[in-house]
Order: sequence, then structure tokens, then C-alpha cells
Amino acid sequence: MKKETIPTMNPINETHRIQTGQLDVPPRLLLGPGPSNAHPRVLQALGMRQVGHLDPHFIALMNDIQELLRYAWQTDNELTIPVSGTGSAAMEASLANTVEPGDVVLVGVNGYFGERLVDMAGRYGADVRRLEKEWGQTFTLDELRAGLEKHRPAILALVHAETSTGARQPLEGVGQLCRELDCLLLVDTVTSLGGVPLFLDAWDIDLAYSGSQKCLSCPPGLAPLTLGPRAVARLHNRQTKVANWYLDMSQLGRYWGSERTYHHTAPINMNYALREALRLVAGEGLEARWARHQANAELLWDGLEALGLACHVAREFRLPSLTTVRVPEGVDARVVARTLLNDYNIEIAGGFGPLAGKIWRIGLMGFNSRRENVLLLLSALERVLS
Amino acid sequence: MKKETIPTMNPINETHRIQTGQLDVPPRLLLGPGPSNAHPRVLQALGMRQVGHLDPHFIALMNDIQELLRYAWQTDNELTIPVSGTGSAAMEASLANTVEPGDVVLVGVNGYFGERLVDMAGRYGADVRRLEKEWGQTFTLDELRAGLEKHRPAILALVHAETSTGARQPLEGVGQLCRELDCLLLVDTVTSLGGVPLFLDAWDIDLAYSGSQKCLSCPPGLAPLTLGPRAVARLHNRQTKVANWYLDMSQLGRYWGSERTYHHTAPINMNYALREALRLVAGEGLEARWARHQANAELLWDGLEALGLACHVAREFRLPSLTTVRVPEGVDARVVARTLLNDYNIEIAGGFGPLAGKIWRIGLMGFNSRRENVLLLLSALERVLS
Repeated sequence: MKKETIPTMNPINETHRIQTGQLDVPPRLLLGPGPSNAHPRVLQALGMRQVGHLDPHFIALMNDIQELLRYAWQTDNELTIPVSGTGSAAMEASLANTVEPGDVVLVGVNGYFGERLVDMAGRYGADVRRLEKEWGQTFTLDELRAGLEKHRPAILALVHAETSTGARQPLEGVGQLCRELDCLLLVDTVTSLGGVPLFLDAWDIDLAYSGSQKCLSCPPGLAPLTLGPRAVARLHNRQTKVANWYLDMSQLGRYWGSERTYHHTAPINMNYALREALRLVAGEGLEARWARHQANAELLWDGLEALGLACHVAREFRLPSLTTVRVPEGVDARVVARTLLNDYNIEIAGGFGPLAGKIWRIGLMGFNSRRENVLLLLSALERVLS
Repeated sequence: MKKETIPTMNPINETHRIQTGQLDVPPRLLLGPGPSNAHPRVLQALGMRQVGHLDPHFIALMNDIQELLRYAWQTDNELTIPVSGTGSAAMEASLANTVEPGDVVLVGVNGYFGERLVDMAGRYGADVRRLEKEWGQTFTLDELRAGLEKHRPAILALVHAETSTGARQPLEGVGQLCRELDCLLLVDTVTSLGGVPLFLDAWDIDLAYSGSQKCLSCPPGLAPLTLGPRAVARLHNRQTKVANWYLDMSQLGRYWGSERTYHHTAPINMNYALREALRLVAGEGLEARWARHQANAELLWDGLEALGLACHVAREFRLPSLTTVRVPEGVDARVVARTLLNDYNIEIAGGFGPLAGKIWRIGLMGFNSRRENVLLLLSALERVLS
């Protein structure tokens, strides 16, 4: 065998060649705002041997994912794909593809994710207008109409499930209003998809995105995104290139569409996992899944009340997937969360922004929305608070 | 238990509720341009139970990954992280963070990924200049100096390992040249990190990115990115906000730095996998790993020659991780690749752009760079071609 000269060898810097042991992590029960624990069948699929990202077997799997996402979202949208990133990437994709410099974008800001939409839309040159409510409140149809009539935006962006506050924004009638006033309706469904009733087409929602790690019980790393016909038309009529290569749906659509044009290497194993997570949704059925989330949330709410704790959001606007509880006077929210984690391996989260130190956030999402988890949490919380 | 009213229920659209079987894929040997097969230990780590993305155990794991990435890249750069996307996302991050509208960016275009850098830089408002070579050729130091003197760019972007052509761009001396002419050196190391000699600091490279699914033998879905001090200074001195929220390193750096500020939910399980992949690199040691890639590539090159096939790239510029072979006159490149896949479960790829139909691309990356894989491929190729 001939020996080639390896290019100039420098001395190897060994400083960062650390010795670390085999991966080991404690058995956490993730009852925070996400990620939730992945379903065991999902973790099993995740570790399956790989095929190439243009392999006929992967192409078939891409079709399954797209179909099952349509079911979960209750939409016929052709352009329905998992973005190769986390929920924030799909959030950014929803704006990057539809916003051109100067476009008026009206954002409902009643929590952190509304704020993030404002930040992102601004980076794409939007003329961003804010419709504000206190964190934990939601917008009425009349308030939305007034906002639309005042600002006449090209896009109205709302957060269906505000993960920072636990509030569910009712969407019935909003899509119709947006059509009447000729604007697109963009909806954040990160913490609702697969856990909270959601009818994309029936509610005339033009764009939506989500994450894999909430009510779908798949690890984080993929982010469902869907564009309806009006959003697609807007994409096709752009005067400027999408100002983001990675998230450009005019190119991504060709990879996920019938052309299968190479764009980037899809996260193969994460797509295995997402397919399995969506199979679980289809197997259980949406009505049953939504009812399960609702029933377990009610069990939690009643139990919290019995402990003398108050929920932050009015009952009719509470998310079944994420409950926010007020921290009692004189209690250090962080100490409680840390004790639950260290002594009971249960993760819950605190609030942030205006709710920092004032609330805990408790998620019951997907696989984790089970009666036994509610009982365990209530019992541990009772001990920690006593 | 009180029963809440679930929000307006619409009839469920069952059209997309397809029945699909348990995931099953054939045992492919991935000898294309990536993804390569993940190491079994990596797949095992991938399926480990989850912890939260702000859990102390995850924070410790983030530190391991950063340290081990520094080793693999031979750099002390503090800002060294895995971007939550595939290689293209880190490529985009390298430009998004350092380019402001009007900046001159000089790109060495001698293959597809150079073209992509041109496209991406343009989307961030760069005044993009091209330095061109035929696909499969590389740039000399003199050519680079002439280009830099002519265009006086703020950034020179080169592809160390051109996955579309199999050519290795020598980088010795380029960084020094860039400092002399006051520009940043940005290098694509997607197909070289962990398989091809690479000394980021010794070579004065200011920015580099890679992918998890090539010589690191981890599934696709994470993308290492590193910024040296000069690149960080440029980021801090920006006049404009980074025009990409998801990839904004001024925010991401705070999540991966000592502050641990929430930015987005990191892909937990993919980070488990990447840590294990990097542990394998540190365990083997860079010199041994590079020598293994080189030896197996030489075994392949000699074998191809023995079959009467010619490599596309001059021997001294060939990548040990990716070999391009010329398709003999009268042979249909696609039929050969399809037969290898269908009859032998071996994936290799064809060329594209100006090399479409003219070459095959054969990867020997990470875990897949093994003598037995070379022998199997040569034997299968001989049968298919005869």
C-alpha cells in the first residue's frame, strides 16, 4: 500500500481532550413546560439504524409524517412538514417566508412567545404592531377586530397556547375575521398540537407551527410547520428572496414535495421518532387524546385547589397541557422547584418576565398526561410545601 | 370530578389518519456523502431517557460537548457550540452573525457548497464576490492572495472539504494571509471535522462549522459552530441586529455560556448522541483517527484503480473522507448506484451540477471508515460493473 503524506501535521493540543464517563442521567419526570418525556416507543424508533436522506425508505417515511401531521392539525394543507430545528425555527420560518420589509404584522402579545414573534418579525423588516394584554389574559374577538381595523396588517400572529402563562387563546371566528379584513392568520400551536382541540382548516388558520417535544411526546429537534393556500400564494408572490436560506419554504417544499430536490440533510433519526409519535396520536385518536389531556388537567386543578393553591388563568381559558399556579405568599418558587427535582426527580418550572417568582408552570403533555403523574406531583408538592 | 367543556368541537377529519406499520428500514451501509452510519454507542446514547434542557445534568453535558468539540477542531475558542439544526444551519449561522448589508464577502466557488455560501451571504445583504475554479480543483495561496487584494473582502469563505467534488482545499497559510489583509477566514469543515487533519487555531481560522452526520458518525440534526476572537469582536461590533433570530449567536452564546439564559429548547437526545460521538473521537485520538481515514481511503483508491476506474481529484488534494470516481464511458451512473442499493444495501451517491452523471461519490467517514467496508464496496462494484 502506498503511503500518502498527510498534510502538515502540527502538534496536537490535548487541553480539551477531556475524559468523561458513559452517559447517565437521572430518571426525571418532566412536568415542566417541555420537553415532556418521550414515549418509550418513540425512543425505540429514535435509535433505529439509519438510511440515507434520499433513500426510498426515507421518502416513504416522509410521506407518513406529512399525512399524520395533517391529521393532528386537522388540515389538508399540502405544504405540511417538520422543520429541521426546534419550535423556534418553525416559528421563524412562518415569518421569514411570509414577511417582506415594510409589511405590517400585528402580534397579540400576552406572554413571552408573543414578544418573541415581535422580535423575529422585526428582524425580517416587518412594521410590527402590538396588541397587548396582561400575561395570562387572552384576546376577545372584538379586541382582535378593533386591532385589525386599526392596523390593517398583512398578518395577524397569535399564540394559541402561551407556554409562558398557561392561557389558551380562543380561535373560533378569528380566521373568518382575518379573511374579511384580508390578512393572514398565523398561529403558534407549540403547546397545543396533539393535546388541545385545534382545527386548522375549520378555523381558517393560514399558517401554524409547533414543536415535537410537547404534546407529541417526541424529543426536541423537529418542528412541524404548515402553510395553507393563502400563505403559499403569499410566498409565491414575494418580491424579495426569503431572507433565510435554511428555512426557505420555496426550496424546502421541493424536498418534501414530489420533486425531492436536495436541500439539506434531514435529521433521519429524529424523523423516525416523530413518525412514531404521530402514529401514537393517530392510534389514540384526537378526541380521545384531547379528552385525556382535559381530564388529567382537571384532576390536577382540583388537587391544587385542595392544597390551597390558585391557578393563574381563569378556568375557561386554561390550557389542559400547561397549568400555571400562583406561588403562595412567602414561598420561594425556585427552592420548591429545586427540591422537587433533587428529592423526587420531578421537573416543574417557574415563571419568567412579569411572572418570575410568581407562578410555577406544570405541564401534562402527551405521554406524561397520566393520572399517576398527577397524583405523584400533588403528593410531592404537598410534602415540599408543608 | 367537575367536567369542563372542551372548546367547540368540529367533526374530525379522518382523511389523513393513515394506518402505518412499525418502523422498519433495511440495514443500509451508508457510503455516500453523508449521513454515514452512526456508531452503535451513539445510537444507544440517542435513545437514553430525557432530562430537561435546563437540568443541571444537561448543563454538565453541554460543557462536555463544548470541550470535546474544541479538541476535535483543535481550537480554544470559547464560543464553540452545536447549532440545533443540520450543517446548513451552522453554515447560515456563520454568515448571519458576521455579515451586515454591504459587507464584501469573497467566496471560493469550486463546488456546490461554495455556491450555497454565495446564495446565503447574498440573503444577508453581502456584496458577494466569487473566486472560481472548476469543480474538483482547489485554490493556490497565490490565487487567494490575488483575490483578496482585488476584492478586499471583510470575509473570505472557503470550503475545506467540498462534498460535491471530493477536493480538499489546503488551508496552511491562508489564515495568515487573511490577517495581513484584515479579513476574517470562514471555513466549511462539514466533511472534514473528525476525519481530515484540521488545526483551527494553528491555521488562524476565525469561523468554522460542521455537521454531526459525517466523520463524527452521529445522526444528522446538530451542527457544530465555532467563532474565534476576531469573529466574536465582529459580532459584538455589529451596527444591526443579527437578521436571524434562531441563529443569533449573541443570544445562543448566553445559553451555552455561563449565564445559561433560555433561548430555545436544545435537542436533548441529539446532544446525548453528539457527546458520545465526540467521546469516541477523544478516545481514539485525532492522529489515529486521521491516519485511519487516510489508510482506508488509500485502500479504496488503489482498489478503484485496480478496477480500471479513475478518481476525479488529483491524489494530493483528495479527501480521505469522500472519494469521487469518474463514471466510465457508456455506464449509467444512476443504475449502478441503484443496483448497489437494491441488491447489496450499499448507498453511494452520484454527482450533481456540472458533475451530474460523471462521477460517483463514495464516503468513508467516521465509524464507516473501515477496511471491511472498502473490500465489500470494491467487490460489489466489480460485480455491478461487469
